[in-house]
Amino acid sequence: LEIIGERWTLLIVRDAFYGVRRFADFIDHLQIPRAVLASRLKALTAAGVLARVAGERHVEYELTDKGAALWPVVLSLMSWGDDFYAPSGPRRLYRHAADDGQVDRAGRCDACGMPVPPADIIAGPGPGLEATPDDDSWVTAALTRPHRLLEPLRPADAPAVA
Amino acid sequence: LEIIGERWTLLIVRDAFYGVRRFADFIDHLQIPRAVLASRLKALTAAGVLARVAGERHVEYELTDKGAALWPVVLSLMSWGDDFYAPSGPRRLYRHAADDGQVDRAGRCDACGMPVPPADIIAGPGPGLEATPDDDSWVTAALTRPHRLLEPLRPADAPAVA
Repeated sequence: LEIIGERWTLLIVRDAFYGVRRFADFIDHLQIPRAVLASRLKALTAAGVLARVAGERHVEYELTDKGAALWPVVLSLMSWGDDFYAPSGPRRLYRHAADDGQVDRAGRCDACGMPVPPADIIAGPGPGLEATPDDDSWVTAALTRPHRLLEPLRPADAPAVA
Repeated sequence: LEIIGERWTLLIVRDAFYGVRRFADFIDHLQIPRAVLASRLKALTAAGVLARVAGERHVEYELTDKGAALWPVVLSLMSWGDDFYAPSGPRRLYRHAADDGQVDRAGRCDACGMPVPPADIIAGPGPGLEATPDDDSWVTAALTRPHRLLEPLRPADAPAVA
């Protein structure tokens, strides 16, 4: 993701698929400068890719239908990244919630053969996901567990510290 | 392409699929500032996405295998762009050279059902391709005609001026 494309924009959109929705949570996970995040969120909202919605305490950003339509772009870019930068295999695996089939890089389920919309996909850790002992982000920790795409990711989704 | 991702990098990679290979031709088509183009070509070459090769008179840039592996990313991003920014339909259509089947947004031929690598695709104008009377780029003109992806695009490919 960092070689092709403006790094932050694509990482923000990817994180939105993972369920990241709050300004502070994008900061927590991406370690993006606050001013850069504010400007990218503003641009993505103006473009209709993200929408601002009221959260419990803070405003949240969620993918619009137009934003969710970027799933094939994000998936193909992550697959390319895995091919060339993840020697131990994919960093994340995607399963079709309905039948537990694996979602291939073209977005199809290998069990039922159908294209799977992101809301029906469970993302989980793959063999190439590296441990990040220096990363104390709760988002990073939460993403070591299976989680449905687009569903809000909350601190309670992170495993308890041993 | 301009909303998601660093605009120039993705446009350069897209143009490389179209057959643009020379510094001056990227300038002609994209009207990108020279210093920006030089820096992006350098980064793409360092990343192994493009390779510098000797041309007849000038150095040329061509997609490596790693670069050509970005085709699903470029295709899905262009499809997304057509969906949301091209009310008259796709700006370009892709056909499988072997059987003239149409290549869908997932990169498969609707005649034979196989995924089609970019080298086997003929790109041609679609219903959403707009006339650009103010654009005197020979690349723009050449791209109004069918052309095989990755094959070098030369001024002779442009239609004669009426």
